[in-house]
Amino acid sequence: MNAPTEGGLKSRYDAADLITQEVLKRYESTPDPRLREIMLSFIRHLHSFAKEVKLTSKEWAYTMNLLEETGKWCGPGRNEFIIFSDALGLSMLTVTQDYPRPAHTTEPTLVGPFLLENAPEFPLGADISAGAQGTPLFAQGTVRDVNGNPLPHAKIDVWHSDDRGLYDVQQDLETNGPWARALLTADAKGHYSFWSIMPVDYPVPQEGTAIIMLSNTTGRSWRPAHLHYRVQAQGQRPLVTHIFDRNSKNLDADAVFGVRPSLIADFVHHKGGTAPDGKVMDGDFYTLDYDFIMVPA
Amino acid sequence: MNAPTEGGLKSRYDAADLITQEVLKRYESTPDPRLREIMLSFIRHLHSFAKEVKLTSKEWAYTMNLLEETGKWCGPGRNEFIIFSDALGLSMLTVTQDYPRPAHTTEPTLVGPFLLENAPEFPLGADISAGAQGTPLFAQGTVRDVNGNPLPHAKIDVWHSDDRGLYDVQQDLETNGPWARALLTADAKGHYSFWSIMPVDYPVPQEGTAIIMLSNTTGRSWRPAHLHYRVQAQGQRPLVTHIFDRNSKNLDADAVFGVRPSLIADFVHHKGGTAPDGKVMDGDFYTLDYDFIMVPA
Repeated sequence: MNAPTEGGLKSRYDAADLITQEVLKRYESTPDPRLREIMLSFIRHLHSFAKEVKLTSKEWAYTMNLLEETGKWCGPGRNEFIIFSDALGLSMLTVTQDYPRPAHTTEPTLVGPFLLENAPEFPLGADISAGAQGTPLFAQGTVRDVNGNPLPHAKIDVWHSDDRGLYDVQQDLETNGPWARALLTADAKGHYSFWSIMPVDYPVPQEGTAIIMLSNTTGRSWRPAHLHYRVQAQGQRPLVTHIFDRNSKNLDADAVFGVRPSLIADFVHHKGGTAPDGKVMDGDFYTLDYDFIMVPA
Repeated sequence: MNAPTEGGLKSRYDAADLITQEVLKRYESTPDPRLREIMLSFIRHLHSFAKEVKLTSKEWAYTMNLLEETGKWCGPGRNEFIIFSDALGLSMLTVTQDYPRPAHTTEPTLVGPFLLENAPEFPLGADISAGAQGTPLFAQGTVRDVNGNPLPHAKIDVWHSDDRGLYDVQQDLETNGPWARALLTADAKGHYSFWSIMPVDYPVPQEGTAIIMLSNTTGRSWRPAHLHYRVQAQGQRPLVTHIFDRNSKNLDADAVFGVRPSLIADFVHHKGGTAPDGKVMDGDFYTLDYDFIMVPA
């Protein structure tokens, strides 16, 4: 007969501490120093969290199920785990601390789930909306280095929502092709310009596990209207950022914590007239001027 | 022209701290007090981890991709996230701290990914192996309360590997049906017994994302041979545990940290002869005696 016996532990919490020690000791054998550092820190914080809140088996099981369900919402153009990361502020935190920069350079913000590599190329000044619905917008500016000198031929990815708050990747990209998405090349003076349509405020995807989490916690699931940019220029650190519309009602409650005051800009409303590129507009349109100040690589 | 401006922050790490404060403030509005406690603690530890290791955007992107890939390995009878939780010691930690118990009661251990509800019922003493290959094993014992009194008619789920180290749920359960898996009911004296086959040491699943993580870190991906038990009796807290084979070579390096010394038992080897239930065996077999001491609900 094997009778259950055990040592003189004071409590189940002492026993839990011993498990943490055993796990950390095991992971100290991780060969790669950077992976070892990451694993040991992650395990320490994960265990500290579970102990601090006295996580129950039922709550643990709920979480394991939630993670599996979250996996089911992933697919082309959508990684539901990124939405969780964004909604918990982790994405913005990582972007911020991973981008050392002088104070007057353009702030980075999160990439979001909708960036595509190999976006369609357009000439400067072209209309990139490709049939997407919305009020016309003319955007322009100059890409500069940290000393204010223009950066010739900078590559600029831009992508944004239509007036329903949707992106092309949410609407059967293979059938309909990309829209409100472009790769531009700045001219010899670092200047860029394009026509598109005004982005609008929109909520994070309304089906999935992240929206359930947000509904049960902050209740804030909207993003203020913005354009996404990725700017790349020779000798410069790539910049991923947004430009936000100062008239948005959600600037103080971005579901993914992406807003920085320096990234809020005036999308200027015009009731018809001549646009900056000389085009004569019959109806409403907007203009936006924004320069990007890059950080040396 | 909207020129980028910002305040007088000393560094990107100060900026990261402000993000953490903003996120915590937002989640303080979570209505349910328990969910609020869990979210605030989780966010604090998640952000502390990311700051402590100065997580880079590239490492973050790798992790987001890893989570999406992990989701793809989930399906009936397999939740790859549970394997991660087990391998990081979180499952065992939660089980331990969530099970208050007097020192002489049976220790719990993790449930693992292979428990099925509605296991096939067998009478006491029956062979539950259902054709699975391995050396015969006769297991018996008594389910008792904290004072040593037998618990009549306790319900006992038992499940374990065959001699390849595989479980029925890993082998097309719908076609082949369950094997090495049973629901037993103890007799009026709390006694249980069954025939099955010896479990063997086995590695965690060799395909998937968890095994990659283990290969890159501890290099320990094996589990010592064990029987899984779930014991339920009236007025008692349900007990989920394993009984480990003292002859296993992996007792000190269980990939999922499930071994407790009190759960290691002697699986006694016999070269033929009469088994405890009177059955005469021509060849090798094993016997195991183990009593379960339950905790009052």
